[in-house]
Amino acid sequence: MSTLARRLVAEGLGTALLVAIVVGSGIRAERLADGDTALALLANSLATGAGLVALLVSLGPVSGGHFNPVVSLSALVQGTLAPRDALRYVLVQLACGVCGVLAAHAMFGEPALAWSAQRRTGASMWWSEFVATFGLVGVGIGTLRSRPQLVPFVVAGYITAGYWFTSSTSFANPALTLACALTDTFTGIRPQDVPGFVLAQIGGGLAATLLFHWLCRKPAATVQAGAGAVPHALGSTMSPATTRPTTSAD
Amino acid sequence: MSTLARRLVAEGLGTALLVAIVVGSGIRAERLADGDTALALLANSLATGAGLVALLVSLGPVSGGHFNPVVSLSALVQGTLAPRDALRYVLVQLACGVCGVLAAHAMFGEPALAWSAQRRTGASMWWSEFVATFGLVGVGIGTLRSRPQLVPFVVAGYITAGYWFTSSTSFANPALTLACALTDTFTGIRPQDVPGFVLAQIGGGLAATLLFHWLCRKPAATVQAGAGAVPHALGSTMSPATTRPTTSAD
Amino acid sequence: MSTLARRLVAEGLGTALLVAIVVGSGIRAERLADGDTALALLANSLATGAGLVALLVSLGPVSGGHFNPVVSLSALVQGTLAPRDALRYVLVQLACGVCGVLAAHAMFGEPALAWSAQRRTGASMWWSEFVATFGLVGVGIGTLRSRPQLVPFVVAGYITAGYWFTSSTSFANPALTLACALTDTFTGIRPQDVPGFVLAQIGGGLAATLLFHWLCRKPAATVQAGAGAVPHALGSTMSPATTRPTTSAD
Amino acid sequence: MSTLARRLVAEGLGTALLVAIVVGSGIRAERLADGDTALALLANSLATGAGLVALLVSLGPVSGGHFNPVVSLSALVQGTLAPRDALRYVLVQLACGVCGVLAAHAMFGEPALAWSAQRRTGASMWWSEFVATFGLVGVGIGTLRSRPQLVPFVVAGYITAGYWFTSSTSFANPALTLACALTDTFTGIRPQDVPGFVLAQIGGGLAATLLFHWLCRKPAATVQAGAGAVPHALGSTMSPATTRPTTSAD
Repeated sequence: MSTLARRLVAEGLGTALLVAIVVGSGIRAERLADGDTALALLANSLATGAGLVALLVSLGPVSGGHFNPVVSLSALVQGTLAPRDALRYVLVQLACGVCGVLAAHAMFGEPALAWSAQRRTGASMWWSEFVATFGLVGVGIGTLRSRPQLVPFVVAGYITAGYWFTSSTSFANPALTLACALTDTFTGIRPQDVPGFVLAQIGGGLAATLLFHWLCRKPAATVQAGAGAVPHALGSTMSPATTRPTTSAD
Repeated sequence: MSTLARRLVAEGLGTALLVAIVVGSGIRAERLADGDTALALLANSLATGAGLVALLVSLGPVSGGHFNPVVSLSALVQGTLAPRDALRYVLVQLACGVCGVLAAHAMFGEPALAWSAQRRTGASMWWSEFVATFGLVGVGIGTLRSRPQLVPFVVAGYITAGYWFTSSTSFANPALTLACALTDTFTGIRPQDVPGFVLAQIGGGLAATLLFHWLCRKPAATVQAGAGAVPHALGSTMSPATTRPTTSAD
Repeated sequence: MSTLARRLVAEGLGTALLVAIVVGSGIRAERLADGDTALALLANSLATGAGLVALLVSLGPVSGGHFNPVVSLSALVQGTLAPRDALRYVLVQLACGVCGVLAAHAMFGEPALAWSAQRRTGASMWWSEFVATFGLVGVGIGTLRSRPQLVPFVVAGYITAGYWFTSSTSFANPALTLACALTDTFTGIRPQDVPGFVLAQIGGGLAATLLFHWLCRKPAATVQAGAGAVPHALGSTMSPATTRPTTSAD
Repeated sequence: MSTLARRLVAEGLGTALLVAIVVGSGIRAERLADGDTALALLANSLATGAGLVALLVSLGPVSGGHFNPVVSLSALVQGTLAPRDALRYVLVQLACGVCGVLAAHAMFGEPALAWSAQRRTGASMWWSEFVATFGLVGVGIGTLRSRPQLVPFVVAGYITAGYWFTSSTSFANPALTLACALTDTFTGIRPQDVPGFVLAQIGGGLAATLLFHWLCRKPAATVQAGAGAVPHALGSTMSPATTRPTTSAD
């Protein structure tokens, strides 16, 4: 139970800090850039990527470093996270994401919470979120199965790129999306646009889970118990319990 | 056969996502930068490098992570990819590169496909593509033979630099070049300029293959079967079958 | 004693170079950016992060790579640094931080030392410094306990992000804060604003030390002496004496 | 002898590509930035750092990856490079640096060679080059002795930072300095300013060699032959012959 508590605290802290990094760097970048949106997004994307490395490396060994309900959903589908724990993870992520907005707003003298007025909707944006989340979950699964200690760098690299190659800025995370509905700053999204984003994210995450489960089987050499009877091989790579020993042997 | 299918899917998916990252980030950067081409190229180059790390780390263990006909050609010359497989790799790369353009255009509300009007021709550009591809294939071979797990970072670093130190923006990849003929945006290239680029890329790739094969022999300590009889030593580093066990032991 | 001398020289040299990098890159960025503060901060943040990687990787094995009185205080609280050594570390850091300002000023033809006139005070800034230092110490402890060889990249990533997601520019370091009171350039802070920053930094550092000590226990597999009797387990990860063997086995 | 040939080719190729990356990215950045010097330097510094990672990782295992007469001089002083080989290294570096300028100029339609008119002289600049080279050689030695496989990232990070925290743009390399006298573009330096830079670089490099030799002794655990009789311990880390086996076991 102590272990569960630590995992949930790690998820909550990581999600809150991630949201604070995304929202806070967006606020500062927009204020300083004085209308130069490309420069603001460049700072925002590099800060997000650099911060993600720090959070995923340091907290990943405790909780798996999801910080994202779609990642927890993917782990549930893969059988590496129990349904009850997945629910706990998601609730903590959603609640702590809001705390992250509060923390960021307090750092910049913004009102505690404010509905965003930034319109982010339409087929191009939904397709962007589908692709963004498909890729995020896909490269995560692929890396976890062959070079687990590189997951933080892969995820950070993909999201940094995603800020630029999608028109939606690659939220790719329902907890972040919900939190960003509560900030009327650079990274905001109108509340009514949240459901479309979240549905596209779930769709992309599930599609990637199915495809990459087939695509990125563990190398035969690491399946020790024999190829004929590995009922939980699917789930053997994403649970915190198994990532910990792997990473401690880096 | 299932293994071949997975390798081809990995090549196709990786090439499509790579093209989507290059073209998509170019579109967004140009739109936001409002005429500041240096800033647009900075975003484009960093997004490409960050995305390459993610794709090469996650998909490399499945297919070798070529995503580039010149890299497959180099593997063929080195004897690490069978002629029939090399042909399959190249066809999949060319086809999926076009899919990547379609995916990027759909994210930004651009027409599905459009011939580029951007002129990229002349001796300076061809020399640039020769140098770009020579270096890409060269550092790839050198790294694969001594520190294979760092290939993604080396390739990404080289291409990020290449966007700046060449006048051609370091396409260094015939599948990307062909795909970029189909986008009338920041990263486009006129269809009539494609052959010059592709010939320079093939020349640079072959020159690097010959030079670096001699330059970067595997350290003697890792040649286990004896120095006197290693008929396939040349091919022992680049095939997916051998990179996989190596990287799983990172 | 020779070992202590080397550790103190490493701390002093690292802190001086860190301050020179922060202050010097701020001077150059501000001069070149011609009023574009976002661009200046982008250069300043990337230079700081890149320099931190170099200093922490190269000098960390000698002294632990603190370069920061709050980090030494955290090690003292964790029991991994003797009180007398902690005092020595802090004094060397404070003195050599000033040397770093002198070195940077000499590189740019600035007066040797000058009181800063830049106002950095108020609850938002103090909260920013609390969060910045909380996160810095927290991700440091977490990483040290699971993947010690990645500490440099995690710290650099976090600080690069911190320049953007806090309103105070994440000094997160009393030696740096004091030194920056002595430069009337981009990274300066008024002398009267230093105490507020330092108090917030100490508070954040202590809070993180307590929380992450509980959160990031070492994996059971690496506790070799048995779970029942590990009186110094708390202190077993942060002392230079123990990080050295760990990192030499990377 | 074949080994020597390969080492010299690797040094020459690496130096030529390094110079081409520095000079070429400077040309493109200046052309595109349209007077925004901060933005041009940002692109130039990031391209240099990214390119350095690629060159050092891929060619370092062959020749040690010096690409810099001061680094070869430091190896000579440490006893890890024979005097005759050091001379060969330096001559190849100087000659191939000029080839790198030719290659870059050909990529951008510049005249083959042109004397630079850019003034870089005075005490602030010389002090900058001293600090830049002191740090470059110092972090290199420190990293080589504790985590040799991270040298490329440390050197690249330090130089990326150095472009910003020094007023001289951290040439820190006599071969690069000489080559840049032959380009009348962004990274140029007047021929009459070269000697001052080179003297400062040699001074900084020698100072760092002496200090870091004392500071960063190899961890006792890795000195296998006994602490009492290790006549060549000083030289045991920097020669290509010994870095190769180390890195192949990454």
